Amino acid sequence: MPKGQPSIVPDDGLTTRQRRNRPLLMVNTGDGKGKSTAAFGLALRGWNQGWPVAVFQFVKSAKWRLGEQTAFETLGELHTARGTGGPIEWHKMGSGWSWSRKEGNDEDHAADALSGWREIQRRLAAEQHGLYVLDEFTYPVNWGWIDIDEVVDTLSHRTGHQHVMITGRRADPKLLDIADLVTEMTKIKHPMDAGQKGQRGIEW
Amino acid sequence: MPKGQPSIVPDDGLTTRQRRNRPLLMVNTGDGKGKSTAAFGLALRGWNQGWPVAVFQFVKSAKWRLGEQTAFETLGELHTARGTGGPIEWHKMGSGWSWSRKEGNDEDHAADALSGWREIQRRLAAEQHGLYVLDEFTYPVNWGWIDIDEVVDTLSHRTGHQHVMITGRRADPKLLDIADLVTEMTKIKHPMDAGQKGQRGIEW
Repeated sequence: MPKGQPSIVPDDGLTTRQRRNRPLLMVNTGDGKGKSTAAFGLALRGWNQGWPVAVFQFVKSAKWRLGEQTAFETLGELHTARGTGGPIEWHKMGSGWSWSRKEGNDEDHAADALSGWREIQRRLAAEQHGLYVLDEFTYPVNWGWIDIDEVVDTLSHRTGHQHVMITGRRADPKLLDIADLVTEMTKIKHPMDAGQKGQRGIEW
Repeated sequence: MPKGQPSIVPDDGLTTRQRRNRPLLMVNTGDGKGKSTAAFGLALRGWNQGWPVAVFQFVKSAKWRLGEQTAFETLGELHTARGTGGPIEWHKMGSGWSWSRKEGNDEDHAADALSGWREIQRRLAAEQHGLYVLDEFTYPVNWGWIDIDEVVDTLSHRTGHQHVMITGRRADPKLLDIADLVTEMTKIKHPMDAGQKGQRGIEW
């Protein structure tokens, strides 16, 4: 974690406090492990701040239900029961999305991905959450299912105090251009290289 | 997350199941953000598996209490109250360590770091945890407070099924040699570069 004073003080007319509290667009990209895991770790911090947090999983993982989802649902219940932390929503794209009453069409993942993005746009316009995790969002963008220029426009013009974290490989350069914080996770060594498969507790 | 079949099947006499369930030594290194955050995200997965998880913070963070600590303590209480997930311990090196009855000596961080490592050695020998997070452990090693050869020896010969995750910049090459999974987090862009300071919910 970087410490100390920033090396540049920008000429943006903002006070240090205003600048400090600017909402961030963050991207975890690269071929290494830890992109999603770090995003979910960030969501823990958001929960602890009492922010309404929403996770949107755009791609099925090796195991459909991640350990994090169970942990977050438990933390979300604590918010409801005791007012500890913030409310947490965890949505994943399977056959449609959990908020949609209609059954999704397994044949049309592109339409499902786009409807997920439309919902996120609605929530951003309503300033519904303090932190949005768009997990593996780079894939439907790269596959052309969601228009990158529209993503850039929506995220650049979001109002209020809404942090957004996007994960996935090969993030579009246009997304990186408007991001405040970009980290690349690089694989140096992985057990798969030595013939070891993924295991519970580690990969899911 | 890598998917599918490993490209090599090693000639180690193990079955796929045995190989899959081998305990891992993992390292998150590099100058980018997300090393610790991803390690804590991994701890969530361990909690969900019901593993006894222990976090050891070797270096003070910008804010002494991370959001994750509160979240994990809450999850640990749930384990105690309802048997949900696993037990979690969170130890940090301040003036000594929380398990030590004697007051630590603020003047001697080297001795405190070493006593933390000695405790970890005892716990590894007793096979006390399913996952150990040694957060920012590379620093006391790099400063010569903890002997790297001893670390390599202890970790290489640990028994049972104990996963270990080590975070921090400039991990020693000897540590990387024996690690199963190494990820480098690289900073591509950070708000500090644009004159923005860290903020709550993001950096702590």
